Parts: sequence; structure tokens; C-alpha cells
Amino acid sequence: MDGSSYRMTAMNLNTSLLKAVSQFPDRVAVSDGMKRLTYEELGKRVGALVQVFDSLGLAAGDVVACLAPNCQEYLELYYGCAFARTVLNPLNFRLSPLEISSILKDSAARVLVAHSDFKELALEALADLDDPNITVLWLGSIQKPEPQKAYKYEPILLSKWGAELPDTQAAPEDLAQLYYTSGTTGNAKGVMLSHRNVATNAAAAIAELSLDDSETWAHIAPMFHLVDAWAVWAITWIGGKHTFMSYFKPEEALKLFETESVTRTALVPTMLSAMLSSPSAWEYSYNSLRAIMTAGSPVAPDLVRQVNDIFRCDFVQFYGMTETSPFLTVSVPYARDLNKPGHVTQEIRAKTGRPLYFCEVKVVRENGEQVARDNLEVGEIIARGPNVTAGYWKQPEITARTIVNGWIHTGDLAVIDEAGYINIVDRKKDMIITGGENVYSTEVEHVLYDHPSVYECAVIGVPNEKWGEAIKAWVVLHKDVRTTEDDLIAFVKERLAHYKAPRIIEFVDELPKTGSGKIYKKQLRDLSWQGYEKKVH
Amino acid sequence: MDGSSYRMTAMNLNTSLLKAVSQFPDRVAVSDGMKRLTYEELGKRVGALVQVFDSLGLAAGDVVACLAPNCQEYLELYYGCAFARTVLNPLNFRLSPLEISSILKDSAARVLVAHSDFKELALEALADLDDPNITVLWLGSIQKPEPQKAYKYEPILLSKWGAELPDTQAAPEDLAQLYYTSGTTGNAKGVMLSHRNVATNAAAAIAELSLDDSETWAHIAPMFHLVDAWAVWAITWIGGKHTFMSYFKPEEALKLFETESVTRTALVPTMLSAMLSSPSAWEYSYNSLRAIMTAGSPVAPDLVRQVNDIFRCDFVQFYGMTETSPFLTVSVPYARDLNKPGHVTQEIRAKTGRPLYFCEVKVVRENGEQVARDNLEVGEIIARGPNVTAGYWKQPEITARTIVNGWIHTGDLAVIDEAGYINIVDRKKDMIITGGENVYSTEVEHVLYDHPSVYECAVIGVPNEKWGEAIKAWVVLHKDVRTTEDDLIAFVKERLAHYKAPRIIEFVDELPKTGSGKIYKKQLRDLSWQGYEKKVH
Repeated sequence: MDGSSYRMTAMNLNTSLLKAVSQFPDRVAVSDGMKRLTYEELGKRVGALVQVFDSLGLAAGDVVACLAPNCQEYLELYYGCAFARTVLNPLNFRLSPLEISSILKDSAARVLVAHSDFKELALEALADLDDPNITVLWLGSIQKPEPQKAYKYEPILLSKWGAELPDTQAAPEDLAQLYYTSGTTGNAKGVMLSHRNVATNAAAAIAELSLDDSETWAHIAPMFHLVDAWAVWAITWIGGKHTFMSYFKPEEALKLFETESVTRTALVPTMLSAMLSSPSAWEYSYNSLRAIMTAGSPVAPDLVRQVNDIFRCDFVQFYGMTETSPFLTVSVPYARDLNKPGHVTQEIRAKTGRPLYFCEVKVVRENGEQVARDNLEVGEIIARGPNVTAGYWKQPEITARTIVNGWIHTGDLAVIDEAGYINIVDRKKDMIITGGENVYSTEVEHVLYDHPSVYECAVIGVPNEKWGEAIKAWVVLHKDVRTTEDDLIAFVKERLAHYKAPRIIEFVDELPKTGSGKIYKKQLRDLSWQGYEKKVH
Repeated sequence: MDGSSYRMTAMNLNTSLLKAVSQFPDRVAVSDGMKRLTYEELGKRVGALVQVFDSLGLAAGDVVACLAPNCQEYLELYYGCAFARTVLNPLNFRLSPLEISSILKDSAARVLVAHSDFKELALEALADLDDPNITVLWLGSIQKPEPQKAYKYEPILLSKWGAELPDTQAAPEDLAQLYYTSGTTGNAKGVMLSHRNVATNAAAAIAELSLDDSETWAHIAPMFHLVDAWAVWAITWIGGKHTFMSYFKPEEALKLFETESVTRTALVPTMLSAMLSSPSAWEYSYNSLRAIMTAGSPVAPDLVRQVNDIFRCDFVQFYGMTETSPFLTVSVPYARDLNKPGHVTQEIRAKTGRPLYFCEVKVVRENGEQVARDNLEVGEIIARGPNVTAGYWKQPEITARTIVNGWIHTGDLAVIDEAGYINIVDRKKDMIITGGENVYSTEVEHVLYDHPSVYECAVIGVPNEKWGEAIKAWVVLHKDVRTTEDDLIAFVKERLAHYKAPRIIEFVDELPKTGSGKIYKKQLRDLSWQGYEKKVH
């Protein structure tokens, strides 16, 4: 284009911190126990961290992995990488040493920032890696940094004290983060998220949720996962305050709401449920709370009622995936629906939600056409927009299968109503086909959750000679209550078509969870389909 | 980047309409007198327009100029160009035929969409252009399309009826629009705005102003100018409603607020002032109004009071320039200041405002350092971000002078306070140096506006042997009131340092205005400096 002699500035993460530092230097950025950091101080720490990376010989595009609980340093690392033009690779600390080392091999991380709480895990993974070139920066309390090239984080950062925050302006396509999808040994895929991806998601979140500069965000869900991490830059962008909880404990999270005057947080439903059923739930004041957000899996209606009763704040579900940075929908009613009767808006809030402003989200048939807007016809959710990943790290084939003409195929099945609200009925792979009928596991789970004895449940299809798949429910009961398999099955049959009722109910003490706290159905399915050649997923 | 086999979708204008069509097909997009168009219908009309451009042989990057009052077709043209990958060049219809033809030559427009109201103007400009290859599409009522290649807009659009809205996804750097800066014959500069520029501004506006899907936007200020045009895509993006006023008339604008249940509009201060002083101002109901926005020039405090009295809605100033798509600041208080006493928030709202979320705005000294945040030290406003133009069309030198290292130099002088609110004191070139003292013309104007007889005024520096420049005020009085030069000068001297008072006051019936309705100081200055070799600007 004639006259464009300079490189245009695009949406990137740098702007959010540069702006907070120049516009709100004296505002509190971090409030963590006794510790306070202003945005000016945060900027200085990030500037020093960039110098640390530089002194370690890191170049643009190099990967920095992080194995740590939620903490201020995680915030610094997200920004340190954005300003050093390196890529942050957050690690799920519930993975095994072998899983960690396989990710480090795949991402080719040059630096591992590890917390002493995970010393064993990190050292085993590093031993398996056997790479003398990787540098370790230790957080927490560590006597002697090891193995070969290792430093303590705080002293090495302070050794660069005085360095200015550099005036980095990342290009929109520059990789900002690399997230490995949770769980499955061996074939974890790295989702590549660019500056454009994550910055656009933050912008959309600010707009959709009307976030403002008086927010205090509690980082409670793991910062290695996008249920929480998007708030790192959204909250910084608007000059809000960050507070942290290293490991989730229901009682402490409740207390944090009061002590730090938290306005918002995002949780996975299992966390929220643990908090609401805690005996301490009524002990604290939640006056400053504006909204509790959940993501990661659908929420039982009863939980929504409890949020209203106990926290007396808004409840917002959001839906998305790591591949979409992560938002796709939010369960905030359209403004024109806000004047409708209470039960109508309640119904809307219980749905998955309406598409995010700055991307396109559709529910489509196999042939790509949109399904009828009748709240009945089921299709797959697809999405396109600046928040959609460029693909999977070193996996062009999987990328090409998942993202077709710019549209990412989520694998989530949903309906859409006349007003445009989307409601997920199931994961494509969680849909059960029994006797030729499609059964959506979440529908059955929602009914089970309405039973007063049920604390948590998961419904899956298990092999069955006659029906192909039979419906099985794994159930965790509330403490000190009892019920029987027959009772629960009868409860479902009273409320749903009989073919949708479980044939088998297994009572367990707890359900397997993924690193981000979601119920991990795949593990249940693997258990049930052991010895079968073909799993239906 | 490994695995990124597809081109990523970026922020562009296409998403906003594609989304409105797929998500809100039945919502009213356009309400204009008796006419109603849903988003589905709007999408079809844009789809047909794209085919028209195609049939005229337009290719990506070709320029389509438009000379028309506000109308639904203007909305269609903005989107038609975005979907045909052509560039819209909106023309100020107050320009002379020679100015129009010089723009058409510079932009190398292949198509001119012209309204019959400007038939003479268009035909004279085309005659001067003498380009047999330019095609004219006539809006309005025209007997016989002329000259050589000319068609009526509506029939040619309907001839392509049935064409689908194409699935265009513009690249972020693709040029979306070319705006010529208002006025000065001969050296008008074309500001290049990309899809990224205008889409980011819309996203920021939605976030900053909490726009929602129940908005009805009145396009009252000219759509050829960004005081209004940004709302074309912001309102479409959220599924709001558009209504139009072809030419500004104060009484009709007041009536429109009632008849179309308008929620928001953006005006230049002179329009707002004409509306508020209209005898009809108290005749209509403004219940649906949420905010009146103004931009383009500072607003007298009295006007803000009248908005509160008569419209009983919010008042939001925004500041920016065509080069920044256009927002740089909005006068919305930070959330943490909303609980402060009324007079404090009033003071904040009267300031130019706080920087837009997604870009950086600073007030700097000559050496580039930020000025003290003391509300006293004056510096120039500079800005960097995705909303900043790539530069001036075919003007690499002017571009390089104006945008340095990504920072655009606005030429506006301002102070910044401790909380980060910016307040403009003057245009750099409007600052008067008299007897070695700097006088900011807006300070003097604000005092004059406080005088009950003054309707409009403009303060400039005029040549003076002794002082270098002397201060002169051009004043328009309210109807049927009288005052004297001495009276006004005394009024200023009671309120400001004596050296800031005008030495000369000229009473006039009206002040010259730019195409966008701003008081056109340059013309006053040109008059006063005729015959002088060096103008101080």
C-alpha cells in the first residue's frame, strides 16, 4: 500500500501491559497476602525477566515451559514471554513425569520454570529428557538449584533489576503460548495461540462482560489453563487487580472472596460445587462479588440457584476451548431479553450462551448448512474468527482435519433457538447410541443432579451385546446420604424416556478429573471398553 | 509456524455483517421512515451489490467513491466494498467540483456512487476529471443516467438479486476506506484505513461504551465522516438498529429521537448546540435516549448542562481523528471514580477523556518523555495501536513525518492528571503566542461561551507589529441579543489573565464550518494573514 512505510501495530499482549504501566503506574496490580505490586513495579519485574531470558541466550520463538501453581510469577512469565518474543508453554502439574518430558521434548522448551512444590516431578521429567541445554529457573524454596543449568528465579531476576520494560510490539501472528491439551499420554497436542488470538479474546471478554478498572480477579482455577489465564491480560488491560490462590481449597477460596474483596473469578463446575457445599459457605461476606463464571463443562441448574442464594451475584457460564483462546459463547442474555419475565431470563442464563462478539459461531449439519433455529435439531458447533488457533504444533494433518476453511470443528453437539442462543447437548464423542437411539449424556446427568443425594455423576456408553451401547452412570453421593441403584434409575425414568435411563449405576467415592478439574470421562470410558477393539469415540 | 496450513482470520468488517446475518436474520437492521430491512435482507442487498461491482469489472483494491447524504445505501456501500474487497472513498458533499475531481484523481476511483441531490456537483467534477472509464451509479431520482457509463443504483442492484453474500474474509491490512481530510483545496490527503483499523475501533467502542443489541443508532452527523461512520459496523456487529437523517435539521433530529426511539447518536458540538437551542427542544420525548456523544471539537460546559436538563441522558465526548479510526479517548470516568462526589465526576466528564482500551495514548514533551501527571504541563498527544492508520495515500513523506516508530503525532496539545485523564488545551497550530506568552484559544473560547449573549465563537491569533500575534475573537450572538466589543473583552478580563483577553472582537452572522460541521478556524486565519509571508501555523 502506498505510503505505509511503517509496520502497523496490531492487537497484541504487549499493549495491555505497556498501557497499564504508562496509564496506571500507581495502581495495585497484584495483591497477594501481604504482598503488593503496582503496575509500575510489575512492569519493572517483567523488564528484568526479559533481560534474564536474554542472558540465557533465548531468541524470538524459543519456548519457556512453566510448572507452577498460581502465583504472581505466573503473571510475570506470561508477560515476560510476550515481551521477550518467546513462547510460554504452561504445564499441567498433575501430569506424570513421562507426560511432562514428552511435552518438553515436543515443544523443545529451552527453559523450564519450576516450583519447588514439584521438585520430584520436574527432576524426573528432566532426567527422562536428558537434555543438558535446558535451563531451570526454580520458584519457591529450594536449597540448591539442580540439575546442570539451574538458577533461583528471584535472585536471577533481581540481578537484572533496573532494566526497562522493552517497547516490544509483537506481530499478530507471533506465537504467544503453547498449551497442551489435557491428559492422554503420548499423544498430547500443542495448541498454538498467537498474540492476535489471545488479545482478541481478552478484548471480547472485556466487552461482553463489561469488565472495568475496579475489578479484582481471583486466579483460583489453574493459571496453566485458559479457564483462568485469559483474565491475566483482560484484567491487566483495564487496570484491574490480580489476586492468587496457589492450590484450590474450597474454604480458602471462600475466605479469599472476603479478604481480597474479589469481584470476579472463573471456576470449573466441580470447584464451584465444592465451595457451595462447604460448611463455611455461609461464613463470609460476598458483597464485592459481581459474577461467578464457570467454564469447562455444563452446570447443573441447582448450582445456579445456590450461587444466587449464597453468593448473591451474577452467574455467567462461558463455553469454549483452548483452541479458541478460549471463549466461544457466554450465557449473558441479549439486552432485548433482559426485560422478559424472570423464568425466561433464568432459562437463557442456564443455556450455553450466545456467540462471542468478534467471532462467528454456527451450529451445522454434516453438510455444513446451519440447523433449524428450533431448539431441537442437533448439529456440531463450528467457529471462525481472530480467536481461533492457527493449529496444532507440528501436527499439520490434525490441524487440517480440525480447521477447515478457517472454521474450527469443536466436536460439541448443540441446538440453537430462534433468538440465537446455543445450548450444548453433548460432546460428539460422549453421545451414546443405544438400540439405534441417540442419547445425550448431559441430559441424563442433569436429571441425576436433580436427585437430592447426587453430588457428582458421569454418564457414558458401555459395551452391550444387545444394544450396542448401554447407558452407565458413575455416581458420587453427598456425604452421609444413601440411595440405591433402583431408586436412581426409577428417578430418571419418571423424568425422561425410558431408553435414556441408565442400565447400570456404579457408586464411587470420587470421579477422575482432568488437570483443569473437569470430570474425565475418557478414563471411565477406557476402563469400560478395555479389551474391546473399537471404542465408540 | 509449524502446522499453520490455513490463513488465520483476523479482525475485519466482514465478520460483523456475516455474524449479524447468521445470528440475527430477522432483526430489523434498518428503520428509515416507512422502510424496514432485516439483517437477512441487508445481507442480500450487499450480496447483490458485490455482484454489481463484479460486473463492472472492479478488482480487489479498486476504489469506489461516494457522494451522498446519509441513507441506507451508504450502509450498503460500506459493506459492499468490504465484501467485494474494494475500497470506499466517502466524499464530503460540501466540497467544490474542483476539490471533488482532485480527490477522484488522487484516489483513482473506478466508480462514483452519486446522489441526484448533488447532480450538478458530480457532473462538474466528472467533466473536470474527463475520465471515460469511471462508472457512475446514481442514487435518488434521476431521469437519465449520465454521462458516459452511468446506471441507476437500485435497478442495477436488483438485476443481481439472488446473489448470496460472499464469504469474504479480508486480511487485516486490506484497505477498507480512504478518507480525505476535510477542506483545503489542492492538498487534501487520503487517510488509509484498513480492516484492522476500523474493526478494532468498533470493538473498542462496543467495550468502552457498553453498546448492546438493543441500541438504535441515529446516523445524523454525515456518514462520509468518522464522527458517525464507525457506528455503521459497531451497531451492525451487535445486531442493533440503524436509522438515518439525510441532512441535519435541528427540529427533525429532535423528532427522530422520539419517532425512532433512538438510544444513541454522535454529533459535532455545533449540531448539538443548534438542537438544544431549538424552540422545539422541549416538545418531544427522549425516554429511549441513553447517551448523546459529541466529537470533533471541545464542548462548552453549558452545553453539557443542557443535555442533562433537556435530554436527561448521559453525555459522552470522544476525541480522535480520522487517522485513528477515529477514537483515542472517551470522557467516561474510570469505574473507581464513579462513587466520587457529583462535582468531581462532572469535572471528569467535561474533560477530553481517558485513553481507549486497545491502544496506547500518551502526552509527551518535545523529547518524547511523558509530561508530569499534574494537569498543568502541556504536551502533545501521541498514540499507537491497531486503530492507527498505515498512513496517507501516496504520501510517504507526510506519513513518515506524522507517524514515527508507530506513534502518530496528533498535533493536539493537552495536559494529563494524576488519575490519567487527558484534557486538550489546544491544537498545536491554534496556540497563540502573544508578547512571548502562550495562549490556548480554547481557554478563551470557553470563557466567551459562558457569556449569556454568545452563541458561537472562534479565537485565533492575528498579525500584530508589537506582540507578534494579537488575540482576535469572531463571535456569533444569540438571536435578538446585543452586546459590545468592550463588554465582551471586559468579561474575559474579569475571568482570565489580561494578556489572554481578545484585543479585537468581530461580530458575524455565522462562522465558517468544515464538512463535518466543525468551526473552520483555518479559513479565519487565512483571511487574517492574507499578504503575510509566514503564517504562524
